Amino acid sequence: MSTFERLWSELDGIGRGEHGGYRRFTWTRADQQCRDWFAAQARARGLDLRTDRNGNRWAWWPAPGPGAIVTGSHLDSVPDGGAFDGPLGVVAAFAAIDLLRERGVTPARPVAVAAFIEEEGARFGAACLGSKLLTGVVTPETARALTDDAGVTFGSAMADAGLDPHGIGPDDDLLASVAAFIELHIEQGRALAPLDAPLALAESIWPHGRWRFTFGGRADHAGTARFADRIDPMLPFASTVLAARELAAANGALATFGKLAVEPGGVNGVPSKVRAWLDARGPDEALVARVVAELGEAAGRFCAPHGVTLQVRQESSTPEVRFDQALRARIAEVLGDIPVLPTGAGHDAGVLAARIPTAMLFVRNPTGVSHSPQEHATLEDCEAGVTALAAVLDQLTR
Amino acid sequence: MSTFERLWSELDGIGRGEHGGYRRFTWTRADQQCRDWFAAQARARGLDLRTDRNGNRWAWWPAPGPGAIVTGSHLDSVPDGGAFDGPLGVVAAFAAIDLLRERGVTPARPVAVAAFIEEEGARFGAACLGSKLLTGVVTPETARALTDDAGVTFGSAMADAGLDPHGIGPDDDLLASVAAFIELHIEQGRALAPLDAPLALAESIWPHGRWRFTFGGRADHAGTARFADRIDPMLPFASTVLAARELAAANGALATFGKLAVEPGGVNGVPSKVRAWLDARGPDEALVARVVAELGEAAGRFCAPHGVTLQVRQESSTPEVRFDQALRARIAEVLGDIPVLPTGAGHDAGVLAARIPTAMLFVRNPTGVSHSPQEHATLEDCEAGVTALAAVLDQLTR
Repeated sequence: MSTFERLWSELDGIGRGEHGGYRRFTWTRADQQCRDWFAAQARARGLDLRTDRNGNRWAWWPAPGPGAIVTGSHLDSVPDGGAFDGPLGVVAAFAAIDLLRERGVTPARPVAVAAFIEEEGARFGAACLGSKLLTGVVTPETARALTDDAGVTFGSAMADAGLDPHGIGPDDDLLASVAAFIELHIEQGRALAPLDAPLALAESIWPHGRWRFTFGGRADHAGTARFADRIDPMLPFASTVLAARELAAANGALATFGKLAVEPGGVNGVPSKVRAWLDARGPDEALVARVVAELGEAAGRFCAPHGVTLQVRQESSTPEVRFDQALRARIAEVLGDIPVLPTGAGHDAGVLAARIPTAMLFVRNPTGVSHSPQEHATLEDCEAGVTALAAVLDQLTR
Repeated sequence: MSTFERLWSELDGIGRGEHGGYRRFTWTRADQQCRDWFAAQARARGLDLRTDRNGNRWAWWPAPGPGAIVTGSHLDSVPDGGAFDGPLGVVAAFAAIDLLRERGVTPARPVAVAAFIEEEGARFGAACLGSKLLTGVVTPETARALTDDAGVTFGSAMADAGLDPHGIGPDDDLLASVAAFIELHIEQGRALAPLDAPLALAESIWPHGRWRFTFGGRADHAGTARFADRIDPMLPFASTVLAARELAAANGALATFGKLAVEPGGVNGVPSKVRAWLDARGPDEALVARVVAELGEAAGRFCAPHGVTLQVRQESSTPEVRFDQALRARIAEVLGDIPVLPTGAGHDAGVLAARIPTAMLFVRNPTGVSHSPQEHATLEDCEAGVTALAAVLDQLTR
């Protein structure tokens, strides 16, 4: 069994449901088990384990210092997510360090493995929260007040996990010590399979955002309220779902409604409220903004004849990221002829790219399916990722 | 303060949320408080309190016996329901007994106030469960295995409430002892306001049913999966919502989607599954069946181009109820010129009508809004209901 396989199998059972999907949400028991696993890996290798003020974990080889080369990803998951999105980058980072040590490499700069919290935003609704707090893109006050579906705040959940929520916020000294960040990640989408290539370098991340559409109606009895007397928010919501697909497709963008809350939720009641979360992305920001604005106008038109109220609130926004050209060129030199791809998915690397030279390596995903238990990469491709990451670290730390 | 007002204010705070809606779900703490209140009312009046094998409560004046006249309703609520749907009939029953006693009436037949469990089906999904178990329409095995949204079975929740779930089932002796059942209920819909009448007699209950539509897709990443590669169940669901309204309206029926479950429910994920519950009703069974069948066919057509699978499963079905003509005539004699109305709402009276002469009295609902915190009847109309119910009980027990 290779190092990669061994590490992979250790993580495998944590937070996995009966149908194979993972629920590793920030500051939960499954999350703590992942954090404990990370700490055990650091200890087993004699690395210097640090938890930064935002709860992100860092395992330093040999210790923090200037000009560091950092690699890693995240360990949290979407609801019923796959095994690879996040953990692949952390496991590959430890495995790459093992590979370098086996070869007797002693890096001339510090190396670190990092695992960022709440990358998926699955619990508190704000994606890449760990890296956004670190870089100051999200303020401590905003983060502490974020709530999960049960109304628990980020601050109180963090405190329950034994960490101090009053200490969260930007860490410029830590960022200043990092010369480059490289995130290895499973491909999301299916661009590599037709190219017959196991790995790719990221070129850019599409701009994307989340908007909450709140359709307000009036609760009523499903068996007695006449259609003419109803204020039923489900109908304009349904029209909005169809319009979102049409508008996005016509503009070469993506638009998805994947999360809904219907109140009060009785079978025999007209709903009083439908809250629906839109995820929208596209090749440029102006286009995404235009699609969402047009959708908002259309939703308003669908609401009017029903007397339904509409609120559209942007919950998050991430501008386009273009990864560092010089770093990409150095990596391409090490890895030779490697495809270069844009992606629609957000990553901590995209957040850190605003402050640090940053790059991403993608490992082929044969079906393209992600955020699903069916997400998969072959062991061979994962090992190719480890080998490539080790070669890149070797080069960058000389 | 009248007896009615006093009783009403005692119940008022139980299970009420911050926005004024009630959550009195069967075998919960709020339900137990309602049950305790019922027991206290029986004790305060020296009535003979019995809990039947299904957990329905009966307060007998003076004691159980043949030829009984029973009145009452239920104390459970839909999620965030109003104060009147159910409790009005129970409170009015106790207040009517007080009124008869004040007048020195000694009934020649036993009188009872009944409160049936799980009328709304809000926790375990089967409406009128207490009366359906009593009459044998639902079997004990089926009832025990019903689950709430958290997967708790009816049987285990009942046991936790201190009652024996192994004893549930039909009670023909109890039913045989009842000569008539009269349920007083707030009007659902708005037929009485234009007639300027505070009360009405029920003529019939529309046939109705619940169907679960399961749209099966494949979880995927909202930022990377191309539209062409997605299997997104949200789209055919949305088309089905719009078709349900159109088909029902065209056929003079009612169709409502008020409860949804979207999996896995991440903002940045294409959903893997949408489960949606349809409530459908209409003036006759053949028409309701035709509307639902046509909707199922339409939903299948919406699913096909997306590769989404569809399952349609009927969860409950209630045939048309026509209330007892002879009993209605006797009540109309007591109450004089009173409007007679059909209704689209199911009631325990509708279930019991298959076995016992049954009637319903409706109290005017000025806005028609029901299953909502805004549900309301004036104190004056409620008192008119108490007076009418007392007069009817007086006549029927001579």
